Amino acid sequence: MSVTITTRPAIPGGDAHQSSQYEGFFSLAARSMRSSDIRDMFALTEAGDIISFAGGFPTPDVFPAEKAAALMAKVAATRPQAALQYGPTEGIGELRAAVADLMGQRGVPATPGEILLTAGSQQALDLVARTFADPLAPVLVELPGYVGGLNAIAANRGRLIGCPTDQDGIIPAGVSEIIERLRSQGEQPRFLYVIPNFNNPAGTLLPQERREALVEIARRYNLLIVEDDAYGELYYDRRPPLPLRALAPERVIYLGSFSKVFFPGLRVGWINGPEPLLRKLAVAKQAADLCSSTFGQYVVLEWLREGNWQQHTSWLRGIYRHRRDLMWEALRHFFPADARYSVPAGGFFFWVTVPDLPCSTRELLPQALAHGVAYVAGTGFCVDGGGQQSLRLSFSQVEEAKITEGIRRLGEFLAGVRERPPKG
Amino acid sequence: MSVTITTRPAIPGGDAHQSSQYEGFFSLAARSMRSSDIRDMFALTEAGDIISFAGGFPTPDVFPAEKAAALMAKVAATRPQAALQYGPTEGIGELRAAVADLMGQRGVPATPGEILLTAGSQQALDLVARTFADPLAPVLVELPGYVGGLNAIAANRGRLIGCPTDQDGIIPAGVSEIIERLRSQGEQPRFLYVIPNFNNPAGTLLPQERREALVEIARRYNLLIVEDDAYGELYYDRRPPLPLRALAPERVIYLGSFSKVFFPGLRVGWINGPEPLLRKLAVAKQAADLCSSTFGQYVVLEWLREGNWQQHTSWLRGIYRHRRDLMWEALRHFFPADARYSVPAGGFFFWVTVPDLPCSTRELLPQALAHGVAYVAGTGFCVDGGGQQSLRLSFSQVEEAKITEGIRRLGEFLAGVRERPPKG
Repeated sequence: MSVTITTRPAIPGGDAHQSSQYEGFFSLAARSMRSSDIRDMFALTEAGDIISFAGGFPTPDVFPAEKAAALMAKVAATRPQAALQYGPTEGIGELRAAVADLMGQRGVPATPGEILLTAGSQQALDLVARTFADPLAPVLVELPGYVGGLNAIAANRGRLIGCPTDQDGIIPAGVSEIIERLRSQGEQPRFLYVIPNFNNPAGTLLPQERREALVEIARRYNLLIVEDDAYGELYYDRRPPLPLRALAPERVIYLGSFSKVFFPGLRVGWINGPEPLLRKLAVAKQAADLCSSTFGQYVVLEWLREGNWQQHTSWLRGIYRHRRDLMWEALRHFFPADARYSVPAGGFFFWVTVPDLPCSTRELLPQALAHGVAYVAGTGFCVDGGGQQSLRLSFSQVEEAKITEGIRRLGEFLAGVRERPPKG
Repeated sequence: MSVTITTRPAIPGGDAHQSSQYEGFFSLAARSMRSSDIRDMFALTEAGDIISFAGGFPTPDVFPAEKAAALMAKVAATRPQAALQYGPTEGIGELRAAVADLMGQRGVPATPGEILLTAGSQQALDLVARTFADPLAPVLVELPGYVGGLNAIAANRGRLIGCPTDQDGIIPAGVSEIIERLRSQGEQPRFLYVIPNFNNPAGTLLPQERREALVEIARRYNLLIVEDDAYGELYYDRRPPLPLRALAPERVIYLGSFSKVFFPGLRVGWINGPEPLLRKLAVAKQAADLCSSTFGQYVVLEWLREGNWQQHTSWLRGIYRHRRDLMWEALRHFFPADARYSVPAGGFFFWVTVPDLPCSTRELLPQALAHGVAYVAGTGFCVDGGGQQSLRLSFSQVEEAKITEGIRRLGEFLAGVRERPPKG
């Protein structure tokens, strides 16, 4: 098996000349956009016998397909005209109200006016970056941080500044130190982007005390916080502490998503935040796509109304917890004993660091693919150039029987490359 | 009936203070974003007895609801997992191929690699603006021009430069004159945004000779053209001339949409252009929303495959042609004799200019609403501050019986305000 991997979509032969003809047309923003390693690997891992721990998708075999078909049929039958027409930019009123209720269940009292429905969380990240980031102005992110968030900020030309993390997530003292340093240079960060619950890629869960400390720092420095909570409902031990938004509603923008617990293919997420900020975000959404899929919004509404989505989520937790356990066990068996990782208490990811590799995990990836296994290299998540020895492993969409086999392949491969003499 | 209209979403009482607290957080882009008059008027015109010629939507009573329900049920039953999962950023391969065929039918040979599927045309406009516009760099648009396109460019901080038009659309000599003037100042326009077929809002159809002249100018000045063709299939006399993209495939980016001929609520549009540009647009889309609704794409695919969409489109032409005729007749009967407009040979819009009004059509709008009729004021479409005496009337989504009555109300109102002595 021979595989070549590039960090950009493949350019067919003879195309380089053709591309350069167009270089002059691109905007500064376009020049600073980065393609995600994860998306680019999509095609490569679909073929052949590769076991892929790369994509952080929900597993499609848990989609309640019959249920979904019934909900769709219901929407098509009962509101054909509304569901097929353009809708309000902010989202349909009934779903905004239902999401406000959902926020209440998560410990955040909210009104429908504080909810903006988006085309998944990625659009929420993009709208936030457009509305609050400026070219070259600093934005604080985690080390490692979610590549979709980093790319949205980079696409809007924000300057990414990494904040230190450990096995409990972002370190508040590190954040205030960075803010102080920026301030001494006359700069103020535009916002802090953070995933407190089952971080992507780190798998960490931010403890209560750190949440309080972070919010305290944000108040002290008049900092906006963007809290991304795509995974909070997928906890395997206990429900996470209250969202940051519950602790500082005046300065936290919360991003939620149905993609992990219902269907990503419908593209429904939301932003919950202070109304004056939401109004501006809605103007940004108007220019971005006028409105999200009305049909998708009605299907999610019916899903929430039918009332057994909690049971479905609970069932999902069991499935993903089991997959996490399988990966954990396999990592203990098959990975080098000095590999470092913490066990995620929810979400989809192990972030594994393997010391003493002869080169970066990104450089090793083509060989790993040739060994029939895929991961995401750590460097894409680290804005400081770190993550060379790290990789993200997602257990979410790999069949149970394949998790052990995939980790065995990868562990043996990594042990093997450490034994090889360094090149040159 | 008493109605107040604002150009921004209403701010509840006491909120001004709260808003100003957040002003410092907004990006330069957010500060230059404009809310669309059309979207803001949405809520106002939904209530009461108002006959609204404002929204340029397809009429929902022509949606083939049963057909749609059947297609959705089919997708849900036959590809539940694929349709509910994330998909490729560029769009699902089968639909890209089907759209490439569709482009062929419109006289533009295309490969699937030259098609990027988007969340409606508005996202296509946004991606184009992000990828090719720069802060303060000039972008050429029509006078009047489509407000969704203008807003997408403004949201990306492009500097809008209006090009002259007449009853046949954009005037090529005017475009080259503007380019020469910019060049003499050391500037090059980033692109020209144009709607050749049944322009929104002007209703004009660009003749073959002008298309050739425009493309010739673009070649001479190495100009990129963005051709928006949301309405081309809705012709009432004969099929429009070949798209600009057929005339200069190396420098025209074509935007297509299913929103006017199928369902806007699914949010499926596309970009067809040179592959090197599409690859960059796809990276922009990755940061914007990862991928469009997979489910929506499969439903559109089934719609195209079932093969009788041409008949449906032909049926739509008959319906909209009849509405156009009703509005035309009503305009002749009820509007001041010196009102100027050209009769659209397709699409949804009459652009009417009424001379000698005592104030702008925007200022008159609250009174018009009080008289039970809505339109979109001309100024929102004119980046040069013009359009004060103009208004856009859409006949697409108004029931036939109401078109005559609405135009009667509006005509009498306008005649009335011209007779009133000027204020002060």
